[in-house]
Amino acid sequence: MAASDTITIALDAMGGDHGAEVVVPAAIDYLKRYPGVELILVGREEVIRGHLGQASGDPRLRIHHATQEVAMDELPSKALRGKKDSSMRVAIDLVKQGEADACVSAGNTGALMATARFVLKMLPQVDRPAIITAIPSIDGHTWVLDLGANVDCTAEHLFQFAVMGSELVAAVDDEIAAPPRIGLLNIGQEEIKGNEQVKQAHELLSASDLNYIGYVEGDGIYLGGVDVVVTDGFVGNVALKSSEGVAKMIGHYLKEGFKRNLLTRLAGLVAMPVLWGFRRKIDPRRYNGASLLGLRGVVIKSHGGADVLAFENAIRIARRAAENRVSDRIAQGVELHLNKRTSA
Amino acid sequence: MAASDTITIALDAMGGDHGAEVVVPAAIDYLKRYPGVELILVGREEVIRGHLGQASGDPRLRIHHATQEVAMDELPSKALRGKKDSSMRVAIDLVKQGEADACVSAGNTGALMATARFVLKMLPQVDRPAIITAIPSIDGHTWVLDLGANVDCTAEHLFQFAVMGSELVAAVDDEIAAPPRIGLLNIGQEEIKGNEQVKQAHELLSASDLNYIGYVEGDGIYLGGVDVVVTDGFVGNVALKSSEGVAKMIGHYLKEGFKRNLLTRLAGLVAMPVLWGFRRKIDPRRYNGASLLGLRGVVIKSHGGADVLAFENAIRIARRAAENRVSDRIAQGVELHLNKRTSA
Repeated sequence: MAASDTITIALDAMGGDHGAEVVVPAAIDYLKRYPGVELILVGREEVIRGHLGQASGDPRLRIHHATQEVAMDELPSKALRGKKDSSMRVAIDLVKQGEADACVSAGNTGALMATARFVLKMLPQVDRPAIITAIPSIDGHTWVLDLGANVDCTAEHLFQFAVMGSELVAAVDDEIAAPPRIGLLNIGQEEIKGNEQVKQAHELLSASDLNYIGYVEGDGIYLGGVDVVVTDGFVGNVALKSSEGVAKMIGHYLKEGFKRNLLTRLAGLVAMPVLWGFRRKIDPRRYNGASLLGLRGVVIKSHGGADVLAFENAIRIARRAAENRVSDRIAQGVELHLNKRTSA
Repeated sequence: MAASDTITIALDAMGGDHGAEVVVPAAIDYLKRYPGVELILVGREEVIRGHLGQASGDPRLRIHHATQEVAMDELPSKALRGKKDSSMRVAIDLVKQGEADACVSAGNTGALMATARFVLKMLPQVDRPAIITAIPSIDGHTWVLDLGANVDCTAEHLFQFAVMGSELVAAVDDEIAAPPRIGLLNIGQEEIKGNEQVKQAHELLSASDLNYIGYVEGDGIYLGGVDVVVTDGFVGNVALKSSEGVAKMIGHYLKEGFKRNLLTRLAGLVAMPVLWGFRRKIDPRRYNGASLLGLRGVVIKSHGGADVLAFENAIRIARRAAENRVSDRIAQGVELHLNKRTSA
């Protein structure tokens, strides 16, 4: 941990669609709720200062100047080569140097992944990094990985994702009883379905000490009974985005229905408390903050369009991961599970 | 077309979770709405007769006895070899023999696909059959394929799916302006993302005469602006099932919210007309009936758990496909597009 027992988190203050306009207020708000952390705002000093206001004297809120920014559509390779003083790169450098225990960026996922992998390096025995996040389900929430870091995965990769996901969730999620229940995403519960990688991963997981409960189908992510759902990054990303699409469509139809005429508007008014409660329950902002797993350090990706509340949630996830030394735990977990397998 | 201009549809009366209990009433109801079709109920005569009631004298409703049934979890290869007199197989045989213009089954998808492929054979130049269905979207509905017939697809397969989907939609969907807008499912709109097959399929589609609009992400299925979304069967199935899961979760939370206490129950009562209207809009029963494309004949797969209303919808889709000679159109479309490519 950096310097003292206090957790220090580096924030890419220029990343995302809104940059410092969201990141700086989120940092200020977060310190009000959790006074015991230190935050480093990385980016152009004059811009950050312009958003600090009264908080500029707070010693828990430091500015670390960085002259460049990574664009949201910039090629990862270009960002890596050409932007050595970008707010994103410097935030990750601070983790590498031990100045920060974790970093958060709402910037371009590809560039963040490439840069984090280059600067921090992978944990031993981990072949690929993976992206994981929690999403709401009927009985609480479900963690899903990978969400887009890897488009083609072998059974071995899927197995490693399962180990990493299991360790992360055991470390940071108090609401889930250990050991987390692991499911493998497939297109049918019968043994006959699925592609080769998935079938092989099923064998590896069945033979492991993980709390593996077998195949789950797409709807299983939302219907409870599983804590971590493992899949490749293409499928995971499509599943997540499709679900976002459905939620948006449903929201649109509900809004449209209640707006139709005076009577339905009144009905909407009466139903408001219920609709708001429901909305809060599946509010994607409450789930903002995806962890990049498999790296020697904690890197959290915030949604590019995150608002202040959503970005604060990403900071919270970074703090939890740093406090619980997630990278160390994952390294130990991977070593344990892979060694057990080779010695079996 | 069988015998006369009247469309004849063979129904697997024993398939699905409910068998004749759902299929026979659906057939009777369907004839009330669309008197101009003939339906053949395939399965065990005594069982079917038990559900016919007053309709048993209707000449448009014939029974074709079949002694066997395919179980919902039966291996496709086993069904194909061992169940030559199953209701599913005989319904498909009737299409092959020209006795029926289309068939509908709520049975096991794998067995239906394997049997249909074996009996009817593929259309020339089509490598793989694909499963397509329409699902609700913000501006109407979107057709998605493949939904599970193919777990590993090459770029060429994806291209053929696009051609088949385009032809089907042009033939049967009056609400969509021709030529249908085709999108390719991917995990980012930037050119840098996606796997190799998807990138190559993008090239093939971009060079074709199809109305190809480029990549769409998972949420794009529901947000309008595209008519046919093409992907492989693993991804398509997961996207569809995930979306079903989200819809169920949202339904659960809404119901729970309105049931909490007397006040919320009253609010629910007031909001009921809006909630019902909304429910009807995304009612999966209204979208029941997936087409198996690429075969020399029309085969429609109903959801296994379909109720009477849902199964009627599958019959409707079969009728539309048969009336519009979808298989012929797809054969012509594939020939046209593939020849254009090789001659280019």
